[in-house]
Amino acid sequence: MTQVETLQVDLTDRGYQILVGPNLICNAAQYLSPLISDKPAIIITDSNVSQHHLEKLTNSMKDGDIAYTVITLPAGEDQKSFKGLQNLISAILDKKPERNSTLIAFGGGVVGDLTGFLASIILRGIDFIQIPTTLLAQVDSSIGGKTGINTQHGKNLVGSFYQPRLVLSDTTALETLPRRELLAGYAEIVKYGLIGDKNFFEWLEQNGRPLVDGSQKLRKHAIIASCRAKAKIVSKDEKELGNRALLNFGHTFGHSLEAETGFSEKLLHGEAVSIGMVMAFDLSVQKGICSPKDAAQVRAHLASMGLPTRPTDVPNQTWCSDALLKHMAQDKKVHKGKMTFILTRGIGDTFITSEVDNTEVKALLAEAIAV
Amino acid sequence: MTQVETLQVDLTDRGYQILVGPNLICNAAQYLSPLISDKPAIIITDSNVSQHHLEKLTNSMKDGDIAYTVITLPAGEDQKSFKGLQNLISAILDKKPERNSTLIAFGGGVVGDLTGFLASIILRGIDFIQIPTTLLAQVDSSIGGKTGINTQHGKNLVGSFYQPRLVLSDTTALETLPRRELLAGYAEIVKYGLIGDKNFFEWLEQNGRPLVDGSQKLRKHAIIASCRAKAKIVSKDEKELGNRALLNFGHTFGHSLEAETGFSEKLLHGEAVSIGMVMAFDLSVQKGICSPKDAAQVRAHLASMGLPTRPTDVPNQTWCSDALLKHMAQDKKVHKGKMTFILTRGIGDTFITSEVDNTEVKALLAEAIAV
Repeated sequence: MTQVETLQVDLTDRGYQILVGPNLICNAAQYLSPLISDKPAIIITDSNVSQHHLEKLTNSMKDGDIAYTVITLPAGEDQKSFKGLQNLISAILDKKPERNSTLIAFGGGVVGDLTGFLASIILRGIDFIQIPTTLLAQVDSSIGGKTGINTQHGKNLVGSFYQPRLVLSDTTALETLPRRELLAGYAEIVKYGLIGDKNFFEWLEQNGRPLVDGSQKLRKHAIIASCRAKAKIVSKDEKELGNRALLNFGHTFGHSLEAETGFSEKLLHGEAVSIGMVMAFDLSVQKGICSPKDAAQVRAHLASMGLPTRPTDVPNQTWCSDALLKHMAQDKKVHKGKMTFILTRGIGDTFITSEVDNTEVKALLAEAIAV
Repeated sequence: MTQVETLQVDLTDRGYQILVGPNLICNAAQYLSPLISDKPAIIITDSNVSQHHLEKLTNSMKDGDIAYTVITLPAGEDQKSFKGLQNLISAILDKKPERNSTLIAFGGGVVGDLTGFLASIILRGIDFIQIPTTLLAQVDSSIGGKTGINTQHGKNLVGSFYQPRLVLSDTTALETLPRRELLAGYAEIVKYGLIGDKNFFEWLEQNGRPLVDGSQKLRKHAIIASCRAKAKIVSKDEKELGNRALLNFGHTFGHSLEAETGFSEKLLHGEAVSIGMVMAFDLSVQKGICSPKDAAQVRAHLASMGLPTRPTDVPNQTWCSDALLKHMAQDKKVHKGKMTFILTRGIGDTFITSEVDNTEVKALLAEAIAV
């Protein structure tokens, strides 16, 4: 198993390991076994993931004599709702979990966010393990411990900080992932280069195409680099009192675009982040703190990969800058009524600021949505 | 303000103070002010408490220039439900809270448990302050950080460990409390004597009657002693991995009685605990580890105060030992299918054990419910 790389996330009360490599699902039992009690593990998955990968996981658990039970959710973001939460809690309590029971989140971001939140509140907190099956979840949502559900007031306004006991990121699982979803995950990988690692961004400029086209080796390298970058930030600021907010680069703009498209298939989260990061560069250029050359370089790379870089790249969508601004003002990161922005002095040099006027944002939005 | 006593709860990441004394609600602003940001505090209360005490609190906040807003819930345990949670989350999000917003739980255990749980999950965790207005909440539920709601599967199966930033226990507020509720709270006070402080139990034997009858001084002494006992245990074992379970003395039996009476007015929580503690003594006597004299002494004191000490003391209720046993088996504290019991070697000498056979429990239940 020399192909498996291990990364340690250090946290005061409970750190954990992230394992990245091929065929981790087929060999899951050996990693799960030391962490699971005699109570049957409860695997939470969705109908898509179940179809492609569940048998590999359950076969391994059978071989390893790990008792388990499975709850399969319908696929889709609407599971991350109050209704979805209540249904899943009921399904889990039907299985009579005890305090040493373990939940296994087996799927993408929706399954991971929902399962993590549930683990944090069932019996006032039980263990959970992440086995993310999308690129987006492997490089972002499965690590760092942010969990949550959506309400009519907005995304992830209800949730917790709750860390998994282990993350198993199987690069082989990505082979069944649609290209569009791979690209959406790739946008979050690019984010790590943009926020603090210019060399990594340049590596992505060289290797992004073969990575998305299928290279296991390049994918593993990029996932590890992404996890390492995120773990470093999270270890220092688990509850986002400071620099963890850098991980939201491109997300304030991105969330408002997603809100306008109803968090639908029309615009995937990673696609929204791709556009949002370019907008953050453009705003930084507009404020005279970043060179237009860097902004152009970022836009060129994302576009060359096939990612959208402007709101107008979204097909069949008309935009309204007032509506976008309103969504931005509802973001969790608002403080004293002022929005927090992650701006940049150039590739790899982002920073947090609330020194942005509404008029500047309006001007940027107007330009961004102009056809 | 020499009449106000302060107790520090030490916890690794965030300790807090419990203040106990008269007229704390009228003077709340001076204690709240250092902890509340410029965002309006959100006071969560219920219709009963609002009627008796809200104006005192809001007058103080006005005088102290602390901005606030109020959400008044219908009184009653059914607010501690999924439906209640969802409604309250929606009402709070309508007020656009930010991460530095503070919730104030102003009421009894229901308001405190629900508000604490909400504070732990809104925006992934915001501050909350407890201003408990019942004796039960002042000596038990407002301190220690256990929050939760009930589901159809049982009580408090969904919740979190989440500590308040401050607890203000106003002994004056108890003057409007019905005697039956005072007595129910008194049962939890007796619990602290029984689990680890024989001297305190003997003090209660001497002072219990005037305490319940209205002595501010005796009430303050008992509340402080109770909070000190609980804080000492919680500081060492916040997440109930060990000795914190001692605080559940009488609760496994008690919960099963409450479940059978539908958690209704028929049997208050403290009354159920009173009966449960006597049953735990009786079981300990039955196992030959506790003297019948101690059991009789405990029963005599609780009965002399006017508390029920046998299931058959509950009016208009028939009991079934199988049903009670079934409820006990669904308790959160079940481990490897074995129930955990808090038994006792005598007054002030309790311990945790799972070495109790179902046949012993059945025999005890049969005797307890025999008319």
